Amino acid sequence: MNRSRLEAFSDGVLAIIITIMVLELHVPEEPTWAGLAGVLPGFFSYLLSFVYVGIYWNNHHMLHLVSKVNGMVLWANLHLLFWLSLFPFTTRWMDESGYRQVPVLIYGTNLLLAAIAYFVLESTLIRQQGRDGRLARATGRDWKGKASPVIYIAGIALTFVHPLLGVGAFAVVAAVWLVPDRRVERFLAAEADQQH
Amino acid sequence: MNRSRLEAFSDGVLAIIITIMVLELHVPEEPTWAGLAGVLPGFFSYLLSFVYVGIYWNNHHMLHLVSKVNGMVLWANLHLLFWLSLFPFTTRWMDESGYRQVPVLIYGTNLLLAAIAYFVLESTLIRQQGRDGRLARATGRDWKGKASPVIYIAGIALTFVHPLLGVGAFAVVAAVWLVPDRRVERFLAAEADQQH
Amino acid sequence: MNRSRLEAFSDGVLAIIITIMVLELHVPEEPTWAGLAGVLPGFFSYLLSFVYVGIYWNNHHMLHLVSKVNGMVLWANLHLLFWLSLFPFTTRWMDESGYRQVPVLIYGTNLLLAAIAYFVLESTLIRQQGRDGRLARATGRDWKGKASPVIYIAGIALTFVHPLLGVGAFAVVAAVWLVPDRRVERFLAAEADQQH
Amino acid sequence: MNRSRLEAFSDGVLAIIITIMVLELHVPEEPTWAGLAGVLPGFFSYLLSFVYVGIYWNNHHMLHLVSKVNGMVLWANLHLLFWLSLFPFTTRWMDESGYRQVPVLIYGTNLLLAAIAYFVLESTLIRQQGRDGRLARATGRDWKGKASPVIYIAGIALTFVHPLLGVGAFAVVAAVWLVPDRRVERFLAAEADQQH
Repeated sequence: MNRSRLEAFSDGVLAIIITIMVLELHVPEEPTWAGLAGVLPGFFSYLLSFVYVGIYWNNHHMLHLVSKVNGMVLWANLHLLFWLSLFPFTTRWMDESGYRQVPVLIYGTNLLLAAIAYFVLESTLIRQQGRDGRLARATGRDWKGKASPVIYIAGIALTFVHPLLGVGAFAVVAAVWLVPDRRVERFLAAEADQQH
Repeated sequence: MNRSRLEAFSDGVLAIIITIMVLELHVPEEPTWAGLAGVLPGFFSYLLSFVYVGIYWNNHHMLHLVSKVNGMVLWANLHLLFWLSLFPFTTRWMDESGYRQVPVLIYGTNLLLAAIAYFVLESTLIRQQGRDGRLARATGRDWKGKASPVIYIAGIALTFVHPLLGVGAFAVVAAVWLVPDRRVERFLAAEADQQH
Repeated sequence: MNRSRLEAFSDGVLAIIITIMVLELHVPEEPTWAGLAGVLPGFFSYLLSFVYVGIYWNNHHMLHLVSKVNGMVLWANLHLLFWLSLFPFTTRWMDESGYRQVPVLIYGTNLLLAAIAYFVLESTLIRQQGRDGRLARATGRDWKGKASPVIYIAGIALTFVHPLLGVGAFAVVAAVWLVPDRRVERFLAAEADQQH
Repeated sequence: MNRSRLEAFSDGVLAIIITIMVLELHVPEEPTWAGLAGVLPGFFSYLLSFVYVGIYWNNHHMLHLVSKVNGMVLWANLHLLFWLSLFPFTTRWMDESGYRQVPVLIYGTNLLLAAIAYFVLESTLIRQQGRDGRLARATGRDWKGKASPVIYIAGIALTFVHPLLGVGAFAVVAAVWLVPDRRVERFLAAEADQQH
């Protein structure tokens, strides 16, 4: 399996996930401003999940630093795609319930499991290349990758106080990642400089 | 992130948006000509949104003039895809309501926000390249890009008079853009000529 | 616009059309053989439309003989994709109605309009290349492309006698095309021979 | 038709199948743990089908050993995609029925027909290349490919005893294939060695 086909398949799955979520948005029953206001909370959860899928797609280009892809990487990648594929489901439930405690907990758990799956994929790629490989040097200490699960767990805990506190924590992680991850870019730029 | 993966992802999202809208079309309840006539207005709004997504896909190939893609471009692109991804939702509401005022206003606002997001993406690309870059020279004064938001706003205003006037204005913009934008093509052809 | 991005976008749209049709299949209400028997007619119309989209995808590779793609080609291609994108809609209506006259007529009309759109795309490509271009020589007289609309029209006429006669005619066209079109393959092989 | 476009189309269809299945998952009616528990069986059948589509995508890269693609291969591939495209349908029925006998039989039959279609595709590719071709040498005796249909048939038989025994057999096949198939990888590695 060459890397480009893995990237193409992952791009396809992420493009579908990010787009079909809109099919879950309920059209207002009344053609009025009041009807529109009723669906705005669902709009917010759609936006949050859209940003999350965008972040994962954005970071997924770490694969670009890898030359060979073996069976372990394939399944580590499918494992990540599996948890991401549940975003439309958990988003819809959270939205339809009006941000009640159990659905928000499940949404946060979904975010946490996707983050863990991403970490497993990154580790699988680094182990394959060795700790001196390009990806290991490019990602470095990865404070964002380490902080995110902690905030997810904090958000899950806060949900027991009030679900909206949990949603707020999940929105904070999204905001942190919205600032694009320049490590891979910088690494490639630095590498290009050294070759001159 | 290389440009081709950004293009592939955007193509995927646009292909899905343009195709899943048909899932929103209600099948006539009666297998009769009267039943068919009842869904024709929905068919027209599907056609209009299909043309709009086609236009955005068509113009999106301005990315072809860009060699490097940074984090700003990624998010400017996702911002555009976000507003485009809402087309199935706003189209469906406009259709189901039978072209009532509020849903038509929201549809027009969606068109306007997508046009603004496109302008932001174009500006981000041009700023990155400098005002003498290939994209800046290829797009030139871009009267269509500047006229469209004005017509959208006019359409939104006309919707307060009668929703169908607004829909008419939005159809005019689509018709203007249907004439393919030859600037990028001409620029590439001129550039090729100069190299000989 | 380069050809490969046009192909990738078309492949994406065709892949989505061929796959989302299954979302229209109604799951049997009873978990019994009788329940299954009740959905078999829908299964047949799904199979027929699946084969049709497969045929269009298969023949769409005529684009491979084209080097340049202009705005006319883009819209001729989107015009074809538009009629193909309605297949899930017309298939569903035909199926849900139990093959009643009006929905079968509309299904046949959809097939006819897609065939015309394909012919328009082919002609646009040939006109662009000149009558001595590679595509014109590869497609030659194209008896299948000329016979299909005739059979569609015959099928539409037969539907007024009995809808299942019409469906039979549409199945005949699919069977004729299932035999893959070797003209482009043969042309490329012959061209390769001449170069040796 | 070149191979890469066949791969891209197949990747697109598989990406869509694996992703739209989640649209079939019913959101719990109550925002409670009890509500979540009620949808867990559906979650398991989603996971099983997700793994199956992942396996087929994973094995589908045997196409990489093929240089030319003719019309027979195109239709053998579409035949495989057809049975795979029914997974969302049969999975949903099995889930909604609560794993009753007839839907589980149909699910197993779908798995069996997909396995046969895969075998037909593999044979078509090998026949085209000759028994000494690269694919024939890479796949070798293929005990997994031969054992799977036997276990599917055993699973179908066991379903007459109890449906969950059948589901268990189908899960066993998935587990067997989860161990990635290294034959193609090993063959390419060995071939690379010989060239040195």
